[in-house]
Amino acid sequence: MPEAPRDRLRALPKSIATVCLSGSLPDKLEAAASAGFQGVEIFEQDLLTHDGPPEGIREMAADLNLAITIFQPFRDFEAMPEPQRRRNMDRAERKFDVMQALGTDLVLVCSNTQPSALDDPERAAADLREMAERAAARGLRVGYEALAWGRHVNRWRQAWDIVQRADHPALGLILDSFHTLSLGDTLDGLSAEVPGERIAFVQLADAPRLTMDVLGWSRHFRNFPGQGELDVPAFTREVLAAGYRGPLSLEVFNDEFRAAPARRIARDGHRSLIWLDSVIAAPSVPAAPLPPPPALGGVEFLEFAVDEARGRDLATFVATLGFRLAGRHRSKAVELWRQGGVNLVLNAEPDSAAAGHFELHGASVCATALRVDNAARALSRAEALLCSIWRERVGEGERAIPAVRAPDGTLIYLVEPGARSIWESDFHLLVPEEPAAPGALAQVDHVAHALTGGQMDGFVLFHRSVFGLEPGAPLDLPDPQGLVRSRAMADPAGRVRMPLNVSESRQTATGRFVSAMAGAGVHHVAFSTPDVAAFAAGRTAPMLEIPANYYEDLGARFGLEDEALAALERGHLLYDGDGQGGAFLHAFTVSFEDRFFFEVLERRGGYDGYGAANAGVRMAAQARARPWMPG
Amino acid sequence: MPEAPRDRLRALPKSIATVCLSGSLPDKLEAAASAGFQGVEIFEQDLLTHDGPPEGIREMAADLNLAITIFQPFRDFEAMPEPQRRRNMDRAERKFDVMQALGTDLVLVCSNTQPSALDDPERAAADLREMAERAAARGLRVGYEALAWGRHVNRWRQAWDIVQRADHPALGLILDSFHTLSLGDTLDGLSAEVPGERIAFVQLADAPRLTMDVLGWSRHFRNFPGQGELDVPAFTREVLAAGYRGPLSLEVFNDEFRAAPARRIARDGHRSLIWLDSVIAAPSVPAAPLPPPPALGGVEFLEFAVDEARGRDLATFVATLGFRLAGRHRSKAVELWRQGGVNLVLNAEPDSAAAGHFELHGASVCATALRVDNAARALSRAEALLCSIWRERVGEGERAIPAVRAPDGTLIYLVEPGARSIWESDFHLLVPEEPAAPGALAQVDHVAHALTGGQMDGFVLFHRSVFGLEPGAPLDLPDPQGLVRSRAMADPAGRVRMPLNVSESRQTATGRFVSAMAGAGVHHVAFSTPDVAAFAAGRTAPMLEIPANYYEDLGARFGLEDEALAALERGHLLYDGDGQGGAFLHAFTVSFEDRFFFEVLERRGGYDGYGAANAGVRMAAQARARPWMPG
Repeated sequence: MPEAPRDRLRALPKSIATVCLSGSLPDKLEAAASAGFQGVEIFEQDLLTHDGPPEGIREMAADLNLAITIFQPFRDFEAMPEPQRRRNMDRAERKFDVMQALGTDLVLVCSNTQPSALDDPERAAADLREMAERAAARGLRVGYEALAWGRHVNRWRQAWDIVQRADHPALGLILDSFHTLSLGDTLDGLSAEVPGERIAFVQLADAPRLTMDVLGWSRHFRNFPGQGELDVPAFTREVLAAGYRGPLSLEVFNDEFRAAPARRIARDGHRSLIWLDSVIAAPSVPAAPLPPPPALGGVEFLEFAVDEARGRDLATFVATLGFRLAGRHRSKAVELWRQGGVNLVLNAEPDSAAAGHFELHGASVCATALRVDNAARALSRAEALLCSIWRERVGEGERAIPAVRAPDGTLIYLVEPGARSIWESDFHLLVPEEPAAPGALAQVDHVAHALTGGQMDGFVLFHRSVFGLEPGAPLDLPDPQGLVRSRAMADPAGRVRMPLNVSESRQTATGRFVSAMAGAGVHHVAFSTPDVAAFAAGRTAPMLEIPANYYEDLGARFGLEDEALAALERGHLLYDGDGQGGAFLHAFTVSFEDRFFFEVLERRGGYDGYGAANAGVRMAAQARARPWMPG
Repeated sequence: MPEAPRDRLRALPKSIATVCLSGSLPDKLEAAASAGFQGVEIFEQDLLTHDGPPEGIREMAADLNLAITIFQPFRDFEAMPEPQRRRNMDRAERKFDVMQALGTDLVLVCSNTQPSALDDPERAAADLREMAERAAARGLRVGYEALAWGRHVNRWRQAWDIVQRADHPALGLILDSFHTLSLGDTLDGLSAEVPGERIAFVQLADAPRLTMDVLGWSRHFRNFPGQGELDVPAFTREVLAAGYRGPLSLEVFNDEFRAAPARRIARDGHRSLIWLDSVIAAPSVPAAPLPPPPALGGVEFLEFAVDEARGRDLATFVATLGFRLAGRHRSKAVELWRQGGVNLVLNAEPDSAAAGHFELHGASVCATALRVDNAARALSRAEALLCSIWRERVGEGERAIPAVRAPDGTLIYLVEPGARSIWESDFHLLVPEEPAAPGALAQVDHVAHALTGGQMDGFVLFHRSVFGLEPGAPLDLPDPQGLVRSRAMADPAGRVRMPLNVSESRQTATGRFVSAMAGAGVHHVAFSTPDVAAFAAGRTAPMLEIPANYYEDLGARFGLEDEALAALERGHLLYDGDGQGGAFLHAFTVSFEDRFFFEVLERRGGYDGYGAANAGVRMAAQARARPWMPG
């Protein structure tokens, strides 16, 4: 009786191709090992540029407990006319020498891309048979993979047909999720057609959906499973269902990864495979035992790192939005400002994590607390996903709130509903809850992050894998000084929403924020209210001025009545509709110290977006506006 | 009798769409005027985000002597079912109000992209006829353009068919080079089918050849004529041959332009139209009277800005390559180091342009001198192309060499062959010419520049328009810390070659150079020799170590004999072949102060490239190597 698929999966070593990572070959090996991989693919170019013999790489890998899972690629081999055919056999023998020095027994042959290659599966099979025979004489093996842009062979079924014709025990099929999925193909039928032991190797990569030539797409935009938009889980399920037992190996060509620190990218890669492992549940392939993501109940609080002066200013600023001082911490220089279900924590405690954050980044959000159904389970999921965990020192009788460190270094606290709230245990509460006034703020609707270039994929994977937030479609937002790329993460119920923004230019508001912050961070916080018109009517907050031309056009676009338009204009409110009866009304404050700003919004009729159509007007208005000044 | 086409062309006003430029709407108008444009297209989004009435924009444009050539775009108008049809007419009336306030009489309607649009040319024509009738009642006009991704209308012939069916004097056809050329279409036959006076407006954009969805291509990667790879000259010739007499207007959506200073981009835009004007010569359309580009005879000298200490070090460094001190300047602290046809000028003169360059950028190339057939003519061409011209102060009896300022701020001197060389007039020459030793350096082969992100298009246009260098295909070079995008410029005879390199990452050698230089500059200089093996055998220069693994693979790839491989390895030489009998052998020095380095190369059998296949190995070796240290 075969093993259960779950056990099979757990037994598969996890591997990463050196081409995924930046730096020298030793840097890459070290990063792969430190992220917990069991194996590496040696990408030939990395060996060619390395100043040292292959035997040294073999030793280094062994010292790091890394298996060298494969040597790749061997290009443009099969079905060439003479004299190239003969020369290619010589070339293969030379590479076998290298493999033996490296101590790996498998080489990847990718389908020929040369114009001179013959369209002749029998010749391709004969060549691969001869290469496999030569490999077998040395105890080596050959895997054959269909490149999506191969000259005559670009589908896995064609490659499998040739492997069958060659019919040599040292020759197997190699499958790659990008080469299959990028062509709109799937592995449907794999398990019926290909015995698992004939699959020599499996390479995994995801990618954003781009309509461009597949070669350029592959060479620049691949990313790790869960970071893109391809169905890598379905691909992996098919491979496992067919009985494959070898490594799952990441092979990603990505411009941003190549420019990022190798250790960070290696850890993201391993995280992606652990996540993948947990989502490939299917009748025949149960999920690996990672605790499920938490059910989210919204944002319990946001914590701002301040010093005493900035704390006073920020308190004055949020008071204009209707927040009231609701409590003081029992043992620390920390205030709670509250309105409805929104809690803002202003932390000026010296020698705390917040103080460290303030010193590095200035006044800004240093922690976000999420309401979760089970904090211990969420924490153990995060640990299994290679996150670092944080526990703040606490005073006597105070609650310890566990936290996960986000990729920008801020903390994400995990707060469970309990008999006694954290506010009661840790704070002297000053004012009783009052019934909400019309237009009062009710909840945190979304927390927008500005990221530095190259951080988007890592953030998407972190929030998707740890908290089960799903990414929306990528958007481009027009700042007057350049484009801002945006992707919104949200849980299925829409209780926790987190737009992620990246600006290539340092001149946009987003780019300037990242420069001012010396890193990524929370750029703006949006609060929901059930009645934004009442908020606007009663507002004392310094709201962003919106030009009259905007309302002129709004009338023409949505056919709004003059009276409704005038009300919007008076309230400095922007408007968007989703064409299905949903509407979004929102207004923005000017910024606090040119660092972050607040938004107040009302969602009507199931509107699920973020008013992206208004981003251009908002950003141009922000470019004109001056930051708020106290007093 | 009709006017000659040349005169017609000269009479066409030059215009630019505000969407090409960064900043607020007033910033954009100011930049367009300062670059010498006669008109602007007002892109609606720029007006919506502007805080002030359209009348103010009208006045501002008038004060700047800018005509508002068109208001655009008006989207998704024609062939909609009711009630959208009626609402679209109301929307049109509102936009007519805006146009009258702006003081422009033309609006651009682009073909409908909505799924609900009817595939009915008669209905489209009827709607446009009604819109034109309403426009005419106010003295306004409507132009109709086929978007490349229009739902039912995406070719200019379809748009022309609808304009003919509508048959209204206030309705004309709008042509856009991107929308036509991106689909592989041309304007062939235009003049036979469309009377010039029915062409209401012409928009011009170029683009790199990318295989991707045309909408994304259009919105992010357009650039100015001459910067891309589309045949914009042929497009423009057809428009003029048809008798069009309106503005030639740039409409470019480009992420890098949107993040760059508006004045620089506006000047590049105007330069592109002046260049275009000069290259559209055809039997029916003679070229505008711009002086022709110079015939180039190679690089006469490179000038390095140094101080006294750096000058001594650099002299020691170049001496290891075989350069000898050949002269001292008659009045300045300037030395000439010479070998074969290569002259290196080391300028340590205080209070000179070089001293200013040294202060800003450190030791680096501050000027390049090109051998031209006619310096005065080349200078007048550069001036006509909006370049700034430089004349250094000279001592008595010394030659004034005119120079053009390149986009990186360095100077390009123009040196004519004359009875008396600049060396004889300005220098005390120390040593007579000697017969060249075997392996001696003969000429400057190429001068490679490292650019900051966003400078590539501007540099390409500058060198193409001013000096007639043609750009090669874009390449990606793999540095261990990220990709480097490269494009090589060269004159048709290959005497002046200038690879341009951009790194998005600041971690690559190219990126670090740009950081160290605080801007773009010459990153490496390559010298040719007729016998690189002799150079290598006699070398004393500190050459870059190349790993043995490289030679292993080289043997397998090119089938080189062991002896030939060993000779390459001994000489630290890289090898490339072009598959047509041409070969390229080259070696690199380590860097001078981690700022720039030298290359020595031999071209065999018509090899025309730069050894890009070896760039990965070279860059990895550079990442390991230490800069040269004197003594």
